[in-house]
Amino acid sequence: MPPDIPRPALDRMQADWQSLSEYRDPAAPGWTREAFSEADTHSRHAVAAMMSAVGLEVTIDAVGNVIGDLPGSDPNAGLLVTGSHTDTVVGGGRFDGVLGVLGAIECVRLLRESRTRLRHRLRVVDFSNEEPNRHGLSCVGSRAIAGNLTPQMLALPDPDGRELSDRLRGAGWDPSGVAGCAWDASEVDAYVELHIEQGPVLESANASIGIVAGIAGINRFVVELFGRRDHAGTMPMGRRRDAVCSAAACILAVERIAAAGAGTVGTVGDILATPEAVNVVSDYASFCGEFRSSAPSWLADVTGQLEQAVRLESAARGTRSAVTWRPPEPPVAMDDSVSQVLADAASVIGHDAVRLYSGAGHDTVQIARLAPAGMVFVPSVGGRSHCPEEETSLVDCGRGIETLLQGLVMLDAS
Amino acid sequence: MPPDIPRPALDRMQADWQSLSEYRDPAAPGWTREAFSEADTHSRHAVAAMMSAVGLEVTIDAVGNVIGDLPGSDPNAGLLVTGSHTDTVVGGGRFDGVLGVLGAIECVRLLRESRTRLRHRLRVVDFSNEEPNRHGLSCVGSRAIAGNLTPQMLALPDPDGRELSDRLRGAGWDPSGVAGCAWDASEVDAYVELHIEQGPVLESANASIGIVAGIAGINRFVVELFGRRDHAGTMPMGRRRDAVCSAAACILAVERIAAAGAGTVGTVGDILATPEAVNVVSDYASFCGEFRSSAPSWLADVTGQLEQAVRLESAARGTRSAVTWRPPEPPVAMDDSVSQVLADAASVIGHDAVRLYSGAGHDTVQIARLAPAGMVFVPSVGGRSHCPEEETSLVDCGRGIETLLQGLVMLDAS
Repeated sequence: MPPDIPRPALDRMQADWQSLSEYRDPAAPGWTREAFSEADTHSRHAVAAMMSAVGLEVTIDAVGNVIGDLPGSDPNAGLLVTGSHTDTVVGGGRFDGVLGVLGAIECVRLLRESRTRLRHRLRVVDFSNEEPNRHGLSCVGSRAIAGNLTPQMLALPDPDGRELSDRLRGAGWDPSGVAGCAWDASEVDAYVELHIEQGPVLESANASIGIVAGIAGINRFVVELFGRRDHAGTMPMGRRRDAVCSAAACILAVERIAAAGAGTVGTVGDILATPEAVNVVSDYASFCGEFRSSAPSWLADVTGQLEQAVRLESAARGTRSAVTWRPPEPPVAMDDSVSQVLADAASVIGHDAVRLYSGAGHDTVQIARLAPAGMVFVPSVGGRSHCPEEETSLVDCGRGIETLLQGLVMLDAS
Repeated sequence: MPPDIPRPALDRMQADWQSLSEYRDPAAPGWTREAFSEADTHSRHAVAAMMSAVGLEVTIDAVGNVIGDLPGSDPNAGLLVTGSHTDTVVGGGRFDGVLGVLGAIECVRLLRESRTRLRHRLRVVDFSNEEPNRHGLSCVGSRAIAGNLTPQMLALPDPDGRELSDRLRGAGWDPSGVAGCAWDASEVDAYVELHIEQGPVLESANASIGIVAGIAGINRFVVELFGRRDHAGTMPMGRRRDAVCSAAACILAVERIAAAGAGTVGTVGDILATPEAVNVVSDYASFCGEFRSSAPSWLADVTGQLEQAVRLESAARGTRSAVTWRPPEPPVAMDDSVSQVLADAASVIGHDAVRLYSGAGHDTVQIARLAPAGMVFVPSVGGRSHCPEEETSLVDCGRGIETLLQGLVMLDAS
């Protein structure tokens, strides 16, 4: 860190966190601020006010992205962009996303306090709706900025049949203005996102800073089992076509396939079985699942593996099965030169950065379509995330912010 | 069959069925007439009218049991009772229970048409709420008659917290009168119930008449798995505590344990996992299950088997587990002499009866507390029941009714 840039002020960071954590759904567990909820809309305006207070020129675009610009000294230089998101999963924590937004605001404060003027225009973004929403879509805001939020996506229904565009409107945004949210890729020189790791790798390595080599791809699917409804007391075990037992065996197949890969994960949720009665053999069961890996070859291979396992487990119980794949999200590699600058930045402030893959998706996936992108990770206590216990020490948060700022200064100079 | 008793009239039986099937929930699949629903209350009054029309003295007791009496010739003889139920599971069929009620009414018609006067008073009952209700209780009407419907049972809540007593009141019955529903055991000489088998045994044996040796006992339970909520993209497979995977393994343990017994069954339903999201490792999962067997020793043994399997499967995934057992329902043996009379009755009308166990529970379980009891089964096509496809041929229905009537006449004479 150049000597004239002060270090992050941990006490005012804590105050920022405190202030933002007041915007939450009181009826939900943890720190819940679901995208397009009242708490989310209010908190976005609060983030806009925070940005203004540190001297950023603030706009909020048609899908709710809060964008704050700090003009640079060189009118011919492009944009340096940093940011993250402030929406949460239901029952989420206080760090996922929030660190990258509040950390970027702290960077602006530090730049202004030290009267450091960057050559590039620095842009801070609080992306709208990064977490998967009830319409099955994530990264809505960064997709819009990357020109990748299609009319088909805006028409995605939630379980009650309400379209995403209507949900956006309900939150006060304007889905008819989506096209105007897209940025011109030629204007963006680099993107850097500071985020908590959400996993145990850095903690296990006793490291404070991680530099992300790439973000895992995700293959999501729905498995359906079609059995036969029978009386639970009278149909012998050997003559049943029990959709629930088939589903249980298929869930274990997901676990088995994921555990057999290297650094790969597989998860199941949203289980449904009908009828909801213990005295009737179930005629239908379904569950949603996903596989994640940074290896495109494994993701390509896993679809066949799952389909074969489901076929076998289902046939063993006389049920029929169907596997439906959602559009795959391929792995995204971070830009090598940006990542190298970030690793050097960590080194400058005295940290050996660990290179690692992100199993979680991030807005970076979308913004990487526009510009060279990189990510800085800080450790998650116990590797926990998407839960109220999610925690990163204030000291590690500070180190992440220092690395981000140092990285932005070095990218500005390069 | 004594030559002066005419055989069941298949056309008027079909008309009775048609008339009763009009009382159903139009919003639910199959022939749905859930206990205490509007359709159920209306149909109970329709059954009362049918009973009156064939000359029975009809009363409806405080919990909705519809009771029709045909006085006998000997004032010192006790009661011969027959009946079943007309409520259904959601998405049920047209025969489960209904055959025993409409068949008993047809028997009364046949007795009166042939001017056959029994010595005993013959009582026909349409028991209230035989199927498991939303409060987790079944055989509500026959329990009340057997003096086995306790205040604790009346206070059982449904998933919305509404108590069973309130549900009874809402249907127009009077839970404060439960004590008055109980019969004096000394007045009942025998009970016989005609029912569809609901399983494949008779069809496989190519037999029209089954005589029930006993009714399986049921051990119901709830399995809960307590895991740890983690980000699905970042927590390695080997470090997860995934409640859903533990639940899946425990469901397969239920299947495995039941399949290893002789004539035993095990079924799982009502699966729940939280959070309902595919991108979060589940911290909680639960399911309800049951084991059924006619062997008390197996039922005693199975609790330990399940608890051990759940412990092992749960521990293998680092989750905690709990198994909660509902009060067990022990197997009930039918009365040997009543069963012998019923087998002889089948023989008289030209059928070799098959002795079998019932995997399904019946009102007979409750009424067997008051008097010697027996059951007559007729085949179910494909062994199917508790589904709209539930079917018994009209010819087999007629054979069952003939056996019932012949059995009642022989019990009357014994």
